[in-house]
Amino acid sequence: MNIVITGGAGFLGARLARQLLECGQLSLAGSPLQTIQTITLVDRAAPTAALAGDSRIRVVIGDLNQLLEENQAAAQIVRAQDAIIFHLAAAVSGECEADFDLGMRSNLDATRALLQACRALKTAPTVVFASSLAVFGNSPEQPLPAVIDDRTLPTPQNSYGIQKFISEQLIADYARKGFIRGRNVRLMTVSVRPGKPNAAASSFLSGMIREPLAGLKGSCPVPPDTAVALSSPGRTVDGLLRAAEASDAEWGARTAINLPALKTTAGEMAAALERVASKAATALIDWTPDPQIQKIVTSWPAHIDAARARGLGLLPDDSFESIVRDYVRENPDAISVALRP
Amino acid sequence: MNIVITGGAGFLGARLARQLLECGQLSLAGSPLQTIQTITLVDRAAPTAALAGDSRIRVVIGDLNQLLEENQAAAQIVRAQDAIIFHLAAAVSGECEADFDLGMRSNLDATRALLQACRALKTAPTVVFASSLAVFGNSPEQPLPAVIDDRTLPTPQNSYGIQKFISEQLIADYARKGFIRGRNVRLMTVSVRPGKPNAAASSFLSGMIREPLAGLKGSCPVPPDTAVALSSPGRTVDGLLRAAEASDAEWGARTAINLPALKTTAGEMAAALERVASKAATALIDWTPDPQIQKIVTSWPAHIDAARARGLGLLPDDSFESIVRDYVRENPDAISVALRP
Repeated sequence: MNIVITGGAGFLGARLARQLLECGQLSLAGSPLQTIQTITLVDRAAPTAALAGDSRIRVVIGDLNQLLEENQAAAQIVRAQDAIIFHLAAAVSGECEADFDLGMRSNLDATRALLQACRALKTAPTVVFASSLAVFGNSPEQPLPAVIDDRTLPTPQNSYGIQKFISEQLIADYARKGFIRGRNVRLMTVSVRPGKPNAAASSFLSGMIREPLAGLKGSCPVPPDTAVALSSPGRTVDGLLRAAEASDAEWGARTAINLPALKTTAGEMAAALERVASKAATALIDWTPDPQIQKIVTSWPAHIDAARARGLGLLPDDSFESIVRDYVRENPDAISVALRP
Repeated sequence: MNIVITGGAGFLGARLARQLLECGQLSLAGSPLQTIQTITLVDRAAPTAALAGDSRIRVVIGDLNQLLEENQAAAQIVRAQDAIIFHLAAAVSGECEADFDLGMRSNLDATRALLQACRALKTAPTVVFASSLAVFGNSPEQPLPAVIDDRTLPTPQNSYGIQKFISEQLIADYARKGFIRGRNVRLMTVSVRPGKPNAAASSFLSGMIREPLAGLKGSCPVPPDTAVALSSPGRTVDGLLRAAEASDAEWGARTAINLPALKTTAGEMAAALERVASKAATALIDWTPDPQIQKIVTSWPAHIDAARARGLGLLPDDSFESIVRDYVRENPDAISVALRP
């Protein structure tokens, strides 16, 4: 089996690749397990040396749109022997809001060009598309319902969400036409992300835990009672893999499924950090409010009823404490404070 | 005030133009009435001589995509002085299903190019987009709810519906960004359409009335108890005009509104024809079933709760009999059978 991951050098793409390499095999859409021959990582950045060193890894470096526009390069990305494409590459929400044309190109045109390349193969590969919770946006004219489920009408309030939602529609129609097998998967806010803060409004939902664990100041710019819906990196990758493995009958409708999310609050997150580490760690959290970030974060839904995902055996993380413990176990080099035994 | 109608030589576009010319003025988004200076009809076909003869009519003939690709031509279609664009031009559902690329080009690329042309003006013109009931599709994996309302999740089951739904998202985001003022309006199945049958699966919903009134054989390929949701041409145009006239506050959310529809059945339609004309007229209806058409028609929703439209004062037709009487009054030359007094 040959697999492609766009955005394959990113945090989730690389984690997905590592997990696939460790497992060494995958079942596609209900078929028997197959050995993984190659994983093509397509990204503007190079993957880590550890990943690139695996003989099964193929690396294609470049801008996805440009690669797909050049026929020769497109043929390198999706080949007749590629059975699964995990399409994770995207411009992030902040970029898309600041530069409308960039977002349309990176998130809409790239998806469409990728689907056209898949269609041209005439092999109907499986495309697992990483959509986003950002398709749901609250607005005064159209408040979100208290609980979001798989049939809730998305009303995106930013260009990123619109582009993701449009891409879901394209995936659904290409699948209905038989050009691909389609899997639309909406990812929740991922926490705790390792690494550095980024420009996303949700960045603090990792940073307020990650930085204190590294002995650094972290900030939480929203009040402790702010509700958020989170998923650990592990559960998020599980969701992408399950989407590829589910048979068409298990999967059901071509509309997107919401991945499960743990409903918690900023205050509960800090309390979990204290239980895993110490009061000294939580003392590193700066609670100075940022009205801008607060406005964005409270416009996101916090309560997700992920019925279809549940039907596929996908469950939210048990607790935010278990998420913090996962992070500590997986990132020993990033921990500088004392942990409770 | 200057107005543009894409698809302006089509049945609805021409009717909209005639109504605007007769009225001579329009209120835009809650502002005072303004005199209509020009109406630009953009279409592949020429408008009727009667329309073209009005000095306020400007005619641009050509393929919308081609015109928008050519900068000079695009500047002819939407000009800085154009305050309203009614975007009705589209490939119909049958064409889009038979030729995927044609549909993507005519219904998605054309809409996006039109929006880009509007954005380039920096005048934020009002774009009234004719979306369609076809965004709602029934499927075994995801049955439609018994009643469709403005918050029902569309699950299109054909490419035409997907392209219309994607265009709604583009309109919403261009409006949110302030590039245009956006009005997404979902049209119901229009009956009784004058003229000739076309390739649409819904064609018989006009033909089964129009042909017998002309003394010709008409066909109804579905059983009499088949439920359908219809709107007269007059009420449909009223909906488009109300969308342009509604203030932003009246209009509310940027998501699409469903226009009102009369819920009736094929049998009730025939009975209304008999009340307006005679048993001799209804005897001209051929009830031979067509399982293909039946399958498509029964996949459409028949019960629409058009709450937002109602809030704007838009109501469904009183009865199918009133629709037939409107048709008879408006198309005297198309009537060959005796009518009841």
